[in-house]
Amino acid sequence: MKSSDSSSMESSDSSSLMDLQNDPNNWVMWGGQYNGQRFSDLDQINSDNASQIVPAWTFSTGVLRGHEGGPLVKGDTMYLATPFPNKVFAIDLKTHAIKWKYEPTQNPQVIPVMCCDTVNRGLAYSDGKIFLQQADTTLVALDAKTGKVDWKSVNGDPSKGQTATNAPLVVKDKVFTGISGGEFGVRGYITAYNVSDGKMAWRAYSTGPDDSMLIDPDKTIDAVTQKPVGKDSSLKSWEGDQWKIGGGTTWGWYSYDPDLNLIYYGTGNPSTWNPTQRPGDNKWSMTIFARDADTGEAKWAYQMTPHDEWDYDGVNEKVLVDQKIDGKMQKLVVHFDRNGFAYTQNRETGKLLVAEKYDPSVNWATKVDMKTGRPQVVSKYSTDGKVDTNVTDICPAALGSKDQQPSAYSPKTGLFYVPTNHVCMDYEPTKVDYTAGQPYVGATLSMYPGPNDITNPVKKFDGKRMGTFIAYDATTGKIKWSIPERFSVWSGALATAGNVVFYGTLEGYLKAVDAKTGKELYSFKTPSGIIGNVNTWKFEGKQYVGVLSGIGGWAGIGMAAGLTDPNAGLGAVGGYKDLKNYTQLGGVLTVFALP
Amino acid sequence: MKSSDSSSMESSDSSSLMDLQNDPNNWVMWGGQYNGQRFSDLDQINSDNASQIVPAWTFSTGVLRGHEGGPLVKGDTMYLATPFPNKVFAIDLKTHAIKWKYEPTQNPQVIPVMCCDTVNRGLAYSDGKIFLQQADTTLVALDAKTGKVDWKSVNGDPSKGQTATNAPLVVKDKVFTGISGGEFGVRGYITAYNVSDGKMAWRAYSTGPDDSMLIDPDKTIDAVTQKPVGKDSSLKSWEGDQWKIGGGTTWGWYSYDPDLNLIYYGTGNPSTWNPTQRPGDNKWSMTIFARDADTGEAKWAYQMTPHDEWDYDGVNEKVLVDQKIDGKMQKLVVHFDRNGFAYTQNRETGKLLVAEKYDPSVNWATKVDMKTGRPQVVSKYSTDGKVDTNVTDICPAALGSKDQQPSAYSPKTGLFYVPTNHVCMDYEPTKVDYTAGQPYVGATLSMYPGPNDITNPVKKFDGKRMGTFIAYDATTGKIKWSIPERFSVWSGALATAGNVVFYGTLEGYLKAVDAKTGKELYSFKTPSGIIGNVNTWKFEGKQYVGVLSGIGGWAGIGMAAGLTDPNAGLGAVGGYKDLKNYTQLGGVLTVFALP
Ligand SMILES: O=C(O)c1cc(C(=O)O)c2c(n1)C(=O)C(=O)c1cc(C(=O)O)[nH]c1-2
Ligand SMILES: O=C(O)c1cc(C(=O)O)c2c(n1)C(=O)C(=O)c1cc(C(=O)O)[nH]c1-2
Repeated sequence: MKSSDSSSMESSDSSSLMDLQNDPNNWVMWGGQYNGQRFSDLDQINSDNASQIVPAWTFSTGVLRGHEGGPLVKGDTMYLATPFPNKVFAIDLKTHAIKWKYEPTQNPQVIPVMCCDTVNRGLAYSDGKIFLQQADTTLVALDAKTGKVDWKSVNGDPSKGQTATNAPLVVKDKVFTGISGGEFGVRGYITAYNVSDGKMAWRAYSTGPDDSMLIDPDKTIDAVTQKPVGKDSSLKSWEGDQWKIGGGTTWGWYSYDPDLNLIYYGTGNPSTWNPTQRPGDNKWSMTIFARDADTGEAKWAYQMTPHDEWDYDGVNEKVLVDQKIDGKMQKLVVHFDRNGFAYTQNRETGKLLVAEKYDPSVNWATKVDMKTGRPQVVSKYSTDGKVDTNVTDICPAALGSKDQQPSAYSPKTGLFYVPTNHVCMDYEPTKVDYTAGQPYVGATLSMYPGPNDITNPVKKFDGKRMGTFIAYDATTGKIKWSIPERFSVWSGALATAGNVVFYGTLEGYLKAVDAKTGKELYSFKTPSGIIGNVNTWKFEGKQYVGVLSGIGGWAGIGMAAGLTDPNAGLGAVGGYKDLKNYTQLGGVLTVFALP
Repeated sequence: MKSSDSSSMESSDSSSLMDLQNDPNNWVMWGGQYNGQRFSDLDQINSDNASQIVPAWTFSTGVLRGHEGGPLVKGDTMYLATPFPNKVFAIDLKTHAIKWKYEPTQNPQVIPVMCCDTVNRGLAYSDGKIFLQQADTTLVALDAKTGKVDWKSVNGDPSKGQTATNAPLVVKDKVFTGISGGEFGVRGYITAYNVSDGKMAWRAYSTGPDDSMLIDPDKTIDAVTQKPVGKDSSLKSWEGDQWKIGGGTTWGWYSYDPDLNLIYYGTGNPSTWNPTQRPGDNKWSMTIFARDADTGEAKWAYQMTPHDEWDYDGVNEKVLVDQKIDGKMQKLVVHFDRNGFAYTQNRETGKLLVAEKYDPSVNWATKVDMKTGRPQVVSKYSTDGKVDTNVTDICPAALGSKDQQPSAYSPKTGLFYVPTNHVCMDYEPTKVDYTAGQPYVGATLSMYPGPNDITNPVKKFDGKRMGTFIAYDATTGKIKWSIPERFSVWSGALATAGNVVFYGTLEGYLKAVDAKTGKELYSFKTPSGIIGNVNTWKFEGKQYVGVLSGIGGWAGIGMAAGLTDPNAGLGAVGGYKDLKNYTQLGGVLTVFALP
């Protein structure tokens, strides 16, 4: 929680990031704070008056396609990144004029190498620098005052299928960034660069030999057994050299616990999507890692979906909260996995405490066995050994019960607010050969709305729905209430001390709901569908709430890339074909406040 | 004025356009009504409460570049056209969902043939059809209910430099449309097509033999002499065949007087911009025509700028008002010409009543001689006979004291509300040869803010300014008040019975001001710079005000087309180079209402 006694709005560049993230006037990292809670201590806008908020100002980025993430705010300046070509704007909060703009020159050949739209999930700030992770994998440090390039470091090679979409995270003197390309056989890694000069400090792969993964076979803990993972934990889980093209990319969100000095993040799907081609558990794809922020050494690891057969990437945000379980206060990490289970773990040890379905339609597994940590797969929804067979009615679809859209947590209610997908799929694995830089997918998908099941709905919804916005108790694994939505909720949520929760919809509505009841307090149709994250900040005594609209991302790939074949976009085009009747492309920030 | 006793909101398709335009719940043509007054009888939003309006909903068109014109509203549906590729959306006013979309396939080669951005000034409606004038000159009739194509007629040939940007106008059983290409040596014309089947009814050229112009030498009146124009009035004013590539395009706004059955419109610049190459008055370029709406026959004509030397196209909107001059009520046509003079004429005869500067910086002519109707040119600002000589400090610049941005008139105040440019230029004519489909400009321009002179300002403005929003009395030729603006006001104005006047700025602000005093009542920063026209309508008992933002047009061509050479964009790029510090591209409709 951000301390409410935080001081001045104008934080000097010399303030440490630790202090800056504690000041609710700012919004200096994707999650608001290191804990990734997306909670703000601001309460000027609260559940009594949220119905009265109005748009205060707007800003078009001049870029079409999907706008994920959201702006950073520090003092009197907002920093905003766009999808490819990844323009960065510094905006004066007083005049709304553009202080500076940075526009990299990137080879447009990177566009077709991005699996799920040309999105960018936002910037990082530290030490007077703005960090931009470009689509072409170049990490750039810009002077926050002038927009001048300080340094650039190249993190991968798009000609080999490596691209980037993630928001970097700065911890102390290092900036962490990831890599995308699980659909191109990229072997995932996280890299730490020096904030000062951009030199690589360390890199930790998701698969392969222990040293390349910064795994100490004798020290790194297996979260399930609570014992060291032992030698060659990854190598043993693959056939031959397949780990080299084995995926486990790192395109999601990173959190940090300053007390434990650990960073938390997840790895993506094993490549290819045809599981029959890669026997074994395919470690450490689909894994949550806790790593030492200084050395990168893995403290513990837990694989959510061993030997994935459905593309349930494990990269979703890891939210760090302190809550009581079994009567005792615990340091927890909570995450809503693509596979439809929400995992509550002790974040010091990785010990699994709760693992429950957070959407009632999840059917591919009956439950997570708390002893083995393994999901109990329902064989009729298994796609393994079924090459060229269409496996039907799997829930959730490949884009999961939740995809990248980050949840929010309110320490006031003790609840998580989770934007979810309610989508199922047919999945037909096909044989595929690896060629560097070429798609290495090996499956044909179609997607469609889930069944009409819903837990504790706060309102009725007629017809088929593809999304739900839920309040979830991570200590019990129970869904407290559910708001049905026509489409997947692909926007990141925000919770505030005013007991208001905000999220956006793919039709383009920014919604404010009561944190306790889920009752809708406010709704406004922004220019385009929302896949951005809602943020809040305070400037000159006034609380603002901002969100990017701009339809796209995997759900909106049909519109963003102009695709119409229902199986295109890895199956999303058909699933979300009705979106075009509600919204069109366009990248616009809309900022709300009380009148 | 729209009658306030107008009946139901839902007008059936069989209602005549005459009735529909009288119903202030609708906005069925560019000017609100045939008179082009852009005045609405709605007064729910008025000068007492306009400060409280808020954005009600927004819609991104998914198209970048300049968004001119504005939506039509009829009953429960809004119709909206975009710049190239000229998508058309029918939007449900209740749900804001998209009822249908029409997207023509047009050859992108038309883009570089458009002089001043890929703008489209809006649609026309009649008889259950929506009329779209595509950039490639195809006029399309769409079923207003389904968006299905009813008929298409091709009005010109882009490979010969012919394009289109104008909003069509429907009168009775005909739809009128124009042609662009004055910068490509296009010989202008207006064409009437049958509403029913798209067959051409008549076409009237701006230059050439009498019959091709639908001029009757014995009947068509010369507004100045009030006598017939006589034989070969155009041919005599050109050397040889030059009239064939002589310009006089018709890309502006058309109005109509049902009692006189006359349509009013203006013709553009004579081609080339190098006047030395085309001796003579170059008739009937730079002319206001009054034509019979059924036959096209010219009733009268008046040339504002004979032998143009500055590109002062005469196409600006012709507003039809009834006002007292010399103590007697007169049927007037008023227009604010690019050349910096506002002309008040009797609209039955064309007789010139008032011609005064509406921006104090106008210097190329001292005045209009009321006897001859000719501007008295100041020789040092003449560009004739000065090939390869840079003629400096001409005011206004080529884009005029006002360009396409239409003014509004309030019968309640008797004043015109005029968005104006306050920009001067250097103009260097150069020799140019004609090649079909190639630019035929023959001049190099640079543009810069006008001097600091202003008449009756309502507020102070420090530094250089490029625009003014004025209230003007067309019976006396006096500027009542002026609002200084940083950039040209390139947005069309709206006046209402609530004594509120609306306009947009190039930075992106939608502003509401008091119709009597010019005092600002409301201001909101829309997503992008505004070059659209503000409209108003009523739906389910609520008055709405809407405006397109989306920077571009001639003023914004640097941003829209990505040009940086100051002389590019016919000189506008340098003049408006600071725009990029205030706004970025993006096409968004923002709709306002009381909370
Ligand atoms: O495996 C990968 O490397 C990778 C990368 C990305 C990405 O970088 O956006 C996505 C995915 N996978 C993915 O599986 C997925 O569902 C997804 C959704 C989105 C999005 O932004 O909407 N990106 C990605
Ligand atoms: O001579 C022509 O045919 C022609 C066409 C157009 C057009 O169609 O947009 C413009 C002009 N001229 C022109 O002179 C001009 O100032 C202008 C401004 C704009 C605009 O939309 O901002 N168009 C045009």
